[in-house]
Amino acid sequence: MVSFPGHLQGTHMHIYFEDFENGQTFELGSRTLTRERILAFAEEFDPQPFHLDEAAAADTIYGGLIASGWHTGSVLMGLFATGLLNNTSSQGSPGVDELRWLQPVRPGDTLHGRTTVLATRDSRSRPSVGLVQMYSELRNDADEAVLSLKSWGLFARRSTE
Amino acid sequence: MVSFPGHLQGTHMHIYFEDFENGQTFELGSRTLTRERILAFAEEFDPQPFHLDEAAAADTIYGGLIASGWHTGSVLMGLFATGLLNNTSSQGSPGVDELRWLQPVRPGDTLHGRTTVLATRDSRSRPSVGLVQMYSELRNDADEAVLSLKSWGLFARRSTE
Repeated sequence: MVSFPGHLQGTHMHIYFEDFENGQTFELGSRTLTRERILAFAEEFDPQPFHLDEAAAADTIYGGLIASGWHTGSVLMGLFATGLLNNTSSQGSPGVDELRWLQPVRPGDTLHGRTTVLATRDSRSRPSVGLVQMYSELRNDADEAVLSLKSWGLFARRSTE
Repeated sequence: MVSFPGHLQGTHMHIYFEDFENGQTFELGSRTLTRERILAFAEEFDPQPFHLDEAAAADTIYGGLIASGWHTGSVLMGLFATGLLNNTSSQGSPGVDELRWLQPVRPGDTLHGRTTVLATRDSRSRPSVGLVQMYSELRNDADEAVLSLKSWGLFARRSTE
């Protein structure tokens, strides 16, 4: 379902700010969250009972162990980097407008990433870059959206390199 | 600068939905981001050159290695859990309305967390919990805000336990 213009596809595709257009969709690949990695992430970054302890998690509204939402978001970030950004002139991000944790993510879930271009605009402060707004989702094997994200990315212009 | 009501402070403080009030501020503690952890996070979740490689990072608008924004956000999550949520009836979060990466975070930076209650409201779907909106910041040792976040948390009501 990648709708990127054909002339930019190939073994050395490199995408600049000027190449983004509203409605382009990119498939980002997938990653499986193991119980081991869910627990390790929670121990370092989100030590709440429903991320760390199966018995305690059973007593919550989730009914069992779930991944930290920051773990799930970081998984999307990784798919975004390897599935798109590392083929672009990405210069980072100023932030996120809306992040939703829509469904619990449980051990063994495989998450599939996809992103769509919503808008592009010039940077007010840096003429060498432009901003691209994207809507991204992670979906599980049951094709339920578990996370959605509206974010902005900074991309260098072709003419500056 | 914690302004939580005195009658709830103590060695076994436990905070329920009913205890949150607009304007309450909680200091969340601090964490230092080492180069080793910045690189390890980036390898697993955000393998972009400016998070992974000092030489490549020097050629970007950041002028050197910076932490992944998802790493920084996850650090805030950890401070939030240990500095507040684990003393509360927290039941997770439906999402974030606004996340801003305001300044680069570099190896060795120590980040200090603080959060303030913005609003409280009933849950439409779950009478046993309520929602609390909070504004959180991470500040570095120069007292610059490096990350800000407006998020919603779910908290069980006292009467349900």
